Amino acid sequence: MHLGVLVFSSLLYVTTFALDNGLMRTPPMGWLAWERYRCDIDCDNDPKNCIRHNLFIDMADRLFEDGWRELGYVYVNIDDCWSSMERDKQGRLQPDPKRFPGGIKKLARYLHDRGLKLGIYGDMGTHTCGGYPGTPLDKIQIDAQTFADWEVDMVKFDGCYSNATEQEQGYPLMSKALNATGRPMGYSCSWPAYQGGLPPKVNYTQLGEICNLWRNYGDIQDSWGSVLNIVDWFFENQDILASVAGPGKWNDPDMLVIGDFGLSMDQSRTQMALWAIMAAPLFMSNDLRTLSSGARFILQNKVAIGINQDALGIQGRRIVKEKSGIEVFWRPLSNNASALVFFSRRNDMPYRYKTSLHQLKYTTGSYKIYDVFTEKTATLKDSTDFVVSVNPTGVVMWYVSAPGKLGLRQFYSGGKLIGPAYDAEENALPHGFL
Amino acid sequence: MHLGVLVFSSLLYVTTFALDNGLMRTPPMGWLAWERYRCDIDCDNDPKNCIRHNLFIDMADRLFEDGWRELGYVYVNIDDCWSSMERDKQGRLQPDPKRFPGGIKKLARYLHDRGLKLGIYGDMGTHTCGGYPGTPLDKIQIDAQTFADWEVDMVKFDGCYSNATEQEQGYPLMSKALNATGRPMGYSCSWPAYQGGLPPKVNYTQLGEICNLWRNYGDIQDSWGSVLNIVDWFFENQDILASVAGPGKWNDPDMLVIGDFGLSMDQSRTQMALWAIMAAPLFMSNDLRTLSSGARFILQNKVAIGINQDALGIQGRRIVKEKSGIEVFWRPLSNNASALVFFSRRNDMPYRYKTSLHQLKYTTGSYKIYDVFTEKTATLKDSTDFVVSVNPTGVVMWYVSAPGKLGLRQFYSGGKLIGPAYDAEENALPHGFL
Repeated sequence: MHLGVLVFSSLLYVTTFALDNGLMRTPPMGWLAWERYRCDIDCDNDPKNCIRHNLFIDMADRLFEDGWRELGYVYVNIDDCWSSMERDKQGRLQPDPKRFPGGIKKLARYLHDRGLKLGIYGDMGTHTCGGYPGTPLDKIQIDAQTFADWEVDMVKFDGCYSNATEQEQGYPLMSKALNATGRPMGYSCSWPAYQGGLPPKVNYTQLGEICNLWRNYGDIQDSWGSVLNIVDWFFENQDILASVAGPGKWNDPDMLVIGDFGLSMDQSRTQMALWAIMAAPLFMSNDLRTLSSGARFILQNKVAIGINQDALGIQGRRIVKEKSGIEVFWRPLSNNASALVFFSRRNDMPYRYKTSLHQLKYTTGSYKIYDVFTEKTATLKDSTDFVVSVNPTGVVMWYVSAPGKLGLRQFYSGGKLIGPAYDAEENALPHGFL
Repeated sequence: MHLGVLVFSSLLYVTTFALDNGLMRTPPMGWLAWERYRCDIDCDNDPKNCIRHNLFIDMADRLFEDGWRELGYVYVNIDDCWSSMERDKQGRLQPDPKRFPGGIKKLARYLHDRGLKLGIYGDMGTHTCGGYPGTPLDKIQIDAQTFADWEVDMVKFDGCYSNATEQEQGYPLMSKALNATGRPMGYSCSWPAYQGGLPPKVNYTQLGEICNLWRNYGDIQDSWGSVLNIVDWFFENQDILASVAGPGKWNDPDMLVIGDFGLSMDQSRTQMALWAIMAAPLFMSNDLRTLSSGARFILQNKVAIGINQDALGIQGRRIVKEKSGIEVFWRPLSNNASALVFFSRRNDMPYRYKTSLHQLKYTTGSYKIYDVFTEKTATLKDSTDFVVSVNPTGVVMWYVSAPGKLGLRQFYSGGKLIGPAYDAEENALPHGFL
């Protein structure tokens, strides 16, 4: 037993430097089954929505045909309940034969042929959260190799049915095992969420070395209350969290629920805006086959995506918290630009919030403003008082650039230029803009 | 002092039989300023949204031109913050001269010319909730007469800045005073909301005799949490509340916030469906100038309105409360018809709820089903198990009629036939309907 600990300790030492996969230099984007489809395996009665090959094919087709892929939404991620209840004779995980009759590799090939990527789900423990076979310590290597053999591009490693000691061993081991396959696979660790998300129980320095992204907090649900709860936790702990994120290593506040049943349009814009400020992974969990045009418009907003995907990868912060319920969030971006989000917690009516860039700690000078959701532009001196009207549970989101700079033209997503959305000419403040 | 109590007691006796205005035989419908516009009097900086003549004209124009009036939405109701801070030399309330330069009567005439009606707001107490002049006991008669002189059609009588004793005197007195003017004016009493909404503090028998509608509970806010809180209170107390409602006397769970900022489309359908089940007044508080087509579609649903406006005026009830979070609501309607609402409290994904009309206490037989929001029809035996898929925080709403009956053809709203929305032929159960 004592020897075992020593062995694992030395493995741990090695694995703290194991993640060197060069992946996810900007937050990963795509689609993830869990929030919207859960563990629905009732294909007889619910054939369009159950977890099976066809569901992922449907979503892949939508990503490919409806303009998502070009914006950076390239991952199609399986979550829990995909596997058979038994490992195969060689001890490998295997998909449910009825629901994935062609196997996972066939699905991966279908995605790769369309420029998309496949994510899969495992669990550090005896069972997955849904009761399917987990990946205990002695199965980590074989499961990593199986995923690689299937040509998987990303692995989410959940933490049900394991204790803190096992997690401390297992998460680094899986990181090493994934790297050892030689196939670059993004690595999403649920570890911190199982340990309360905060130091000293959570070692974010280590996480940044072994995982590409990590879930810090509880699962998102399809409600504004859940989104707000997550937002609150992440910004209350921003002094701990913001500094540990960067290219290749991201805090993950969980999926986008935009396009589901619980958020208003304003609340949907708020999730999009604050996930962009947080440099959060953008995994939609919705039905891309029936998405409303309003939800699509928000999720496909090029400038919001551009802010999320900014190459510097600096996670933004809340910089103002007013008694009125107005809060201001800020994220520094490439090319001396920045993003500002004005958010209202109110539940009454639009609030007219008065401030100036000077009050928001901008240095002396003139700035170009692009309103991300209304697409209006303006020029604004730091000393000029302005008023933004912020809807209840809604946001106003600005891209702020310095004069003489390229403005939005540097916006990239998934490695591709998606601008220019904004031509950097100097406008006077248009009437009715502010 | 003792004599005063005697005098008021005898007045009270008289006024318990005072309301005989013949109004509001179905729940009143229209638009009310408060939830969306509050006490915004900043016309310099917020000219489109401040409480003034123009706002009500704008809403009247929308009701008149956009098809609302024909559906029954005829009231345009002013709430708090309309008046001057001082009464005039004759002791009468007067509107703020800058914001209502033409006076209230001019506004009433504008509405009447378009087949619309005007509601106004007063407060049983020294001040309104917003701090404007209230209507203490000695001003009730003059204020009632002033409203009549202005050709007002409805009065909401709030209860800030008065105690229980004053309210016990003032609400019946105002009822009598309104009747004494000879002008039929609908009378909305906030009294029960100030007394906790439940017996023995609240006497619903008396309320039914003196008021046309009454606010039982707290103000609605622009959030799903607020809507759900109100729904919970009204249905938890349905045994007290349902029996006291009927033609001319309605429980009022407060305004519709559909079309504002806080509700998703599913949540909007839920508010519309449950307000219809409750036989609730339908006062929208939103911006009719910029309403989304989705919100308009829900608010203008003829069958939902028809159910709300059913001539029997029987308030519906919750009849099932499942551990799964599914609840079923039922309201009996004219012509042996009924309405069913299946509601989901869940925040995950659509729930497939299995039941039968027999389980829902329908008598043996075959029924015609019309799905209010999808407009699909079917025939269903009481003994047949069916499955409804209910979205998170959403509803499925059915109009259920007996075979051989007129189906939806009896639907009236505001006295006008708005059907037929449904032709009563016998269909087999269409594939995919249930």
